[in-house]
Amino acid sequence: MTYNFSYHVPTRIYFGDQISQQLGQELKKHGHNVLLMYGSERLKTLSLYQTILEQTKELNLFELGGVEPNPRHSTVNKAATICKEKHIDVILAVGGGSVVDCAKLTSPAAFYSGNCWDLVTGKAPMERFLPIVTIPTISGTGTDMDAFGIVSNQDTLDKLPFFHPQLYPVASFLDPTQTFTVSKFQTACGAIDAFSHYLEVYFMRPNLDAHLRCIEGFMKSILKALPIVLEHPNDYESRASIMWASSWALSGFTFGPTKGTPFMCHWIEDEISAKYDITHGLGLAIILPHYLDYCLNEQSAPLYAELGTNVLDLPQDCSPQEIGKKCIQALQTLFFSTCGLPKRLRDCGVSNTDKFPEMARIACRNCMHGFVDLNQEDVINILTASF
Amino acid sequence: MTYNFSYHVPTRIYFGDQISQQLGQELKKHGHNVLLMYGSERLKTLSLYQTILEQTKELNLFELGGVEPNPRHSTVNKAATICKEKHIDVILAVGGGSVVDCAKLTSPAAFYSGNCWDLVTGKAPMERFLPIVTIPTISGTGTDMDAFGIVSNQDTLDKLPFFHPQLYPVASFLDPTQTFTVSKFQTACGAIDAFSHYLEVYFMRPNLDAHLRCIEGFMKSILKALPIVLEHPNDYESRASIMWASSWALSGFTFGPTKGTPFMCHWIEDEISAKYDITHGLGLAIILPHYLDYCLNEQSAPLYAELGTNVLDLPQDCSPQEIGKKCIQALQTLFFSTCGLPKRLRDCGVSNTDKFPEMARIACRNCMHGFVDLNQEDVINILTASF
Repeated sequence: MTYNFSYHVPTRIYFGDQISQQLGQELKKHGHNVLLMYGSERLKTLSLYQTILEQTKELNLFELGGVEPNPRHSTVNKAATICKEKHIDVILAVGGGSVVDCAKLTSPAAFYSGNCWDLVTGKAPMERFLPIVTIPTISGTGTDMDAFGIVSNQDTLDKLPFFHPQLYPVASFLDPTQTFTVSKFQTACGAIDAFSHYLEVYFMRPNLDAHLRCIEGFMKSILKALPIVLEHPNDYESRASIMWASSWALSGFTFGPTKGTPFMCHWIEDEISAKYDITHGLGLAIILPHYLDYCLNEQSAPLYAELGTNVLDLPQDCSPQEIGKKCIQALQTLFFSTCGLPKRLRDCGVSNTDKFPEMARIACRNCMHGFVDLNQEDVINILTASF
Repeated sequence: MTYNFSYHVPTRIYFGDQISQQLGQELKKHGHNVLLMYGSERLKTLSLYQTILEQTKELNLFELGGVEPNPRHSTVNKAATICKEKHIDVILAVGGGSVVDCAKLTSPAAFYSGNCWDLVTGKAPMERFLPIVTIPTISGTGTDMDAFGIVSNQDTLDKLPFFHPQLYPVASFLDPTQTFTVSKFQTACGAIDAFSHYLEVYFMRPNLDAHLRCIEGFMKSILKALPIVLEHPNDYESRASIMWASSWALSGFTFGPTKGTPFMCHWIEDEISAKYDITHGLGLAIILPHYLDYCLNEQSAPLYAELGTNVLDLPQDCSPQEIGKKCIQALQTLFFSTCGLPKRLRDCGVSNTDKFPEMARIACRNCMHGFVDLNQEDVINILTASF
């Protein structure tokens, strides 16, 4: 087993309470004109916003709010125009993964004269980049330490990923206290997103033992911390563990020499979010148990048994397939009883199954080989079971 | 608990079998004149050396061999002179931690007109740096992904650490097959070094749950892989796990919001290596059990119990202090029975205890607060027990 890999995450992480007090000195390294990108206007009510104003008082601060969940290419085009007109030197993305993803595509779009969608489809290359600094206000996506993004095109109802090694944020400010006020719903969705990043990589074999044991550590930590923060939203240590685990969940650290393409469940969910605009983590919570159930067979059962023993602390008193069933039950209990998330797609805006074939087609195009190979019919079955 | 920290490891990792085939393209990024630094002339007999020659055939390759274990400041001065005379653009360090440490001090010494020891003592600042590329041929030190080094001064019998954020290697090529021919003795010493890096951080509390669980994963992986590679030196997966776990062991990843200064046991050992020139990992193997035994008390016992349960798979059928004793026994069994290392300092060149007070004084100066605070008398007691 000698699948090779490379690892390079140049992002500088500032971690801790009140860590944004160091924002100004970081931004100044990159220039004078800052574009603050954010989602909801609620940001203006937070002390974080006052800190940002203070930290940028010697700089020129421009703003673009209203970045939507599942960010749209039209918003990126708007941001790119501001970058060109105002000669922006650095983008400051404050918010969830959507805002950071939007900033990531804005970074090369600021140097491109056409529609940013061209950079996603590959019609035009990403050539120059604005540096990005992020302040995540929710844990989950890990986009603050990776070079990926996902953007939706409302004209075509497409949702596509993009990647470029220059898209790692130059710095991310991870302050667990910023997530104290995140709702139970969003907290659960974020943690489930991060957990499932790890889980989908964990099931891809072969992989290095050292990788797998670390991934287990991160998964255990998320599962331990999530019920605590739902009950005690201001529990710093648990918020911090979820935040740190989330940041690493998609950073390249966890992949290692994974063969094949993980994230089949994510690709299926991305289609749901693209077509129905539902929260990514919620879609994952609904689909993941059905996905795991569908993929559980004699060959894959040892993976589930390893998860059950090493991560979920299940007793080894039955067959691997039975442990597999218990793993799925344990996750369902966490997602639906503990977190209180709806169990079915029909409960969150997916009105019928008409689009499932098309969604399955695109998911299978994006992910050829998961830990169990699935074809379009399989994906339709999983979607239907989740409906 | 809101101890803040920052994390920034910009080193690019190339990991895998035959990965040095990508060396040339990496070196070319940094310039034309390469100084190859290495230890033993045995390098010349390895296919790795042929690969280096091939990968640098369009570049100017200069060489400096003979870097000693526990590298000397006089060797750094020699290397710095070559860098100045030959207008070196990039240093290629091939070997163990000693060679990489030597390269790290050479990097700023190449731009300093005086004795490199001045840069270690702080008499002169490190100002400019040559980029460093590393090819580790042994796992253990983690120096290929950190910005620390240690160098000995044979004139004063001092051994001092140095650090600068510019000292991260720009790239490291981790090829587990390069470690296939490492002797059982050096394999064991390297793995024990890496394991104890994790252990010493693991016992520093408070720390993030997410960190602790990851550290447990790395420790478990090392403990699982070590007996395998002693028996089967060409076991790629186990060599790879030890290599990857070793690289992360000192990279800043594992520290997190650690309060206090870990590595007391390392500081004690560094004094032994400085005074008696014995292999660092061997010194650690001898001292660590006595150090752990000395620090085991009612207050610290829960840490040992956590280690026993989560890493060493010991049953929880007795008191934390009894589990603590069993942890120490388990490590002694691994170090002395499985690895076959000598048990006492007197068996490896430490002829008497005369220097122990001075060694204790320096260790206590370098490390004020471990997971249990130790004074000079305590350190003398540990050294005497290890003698």
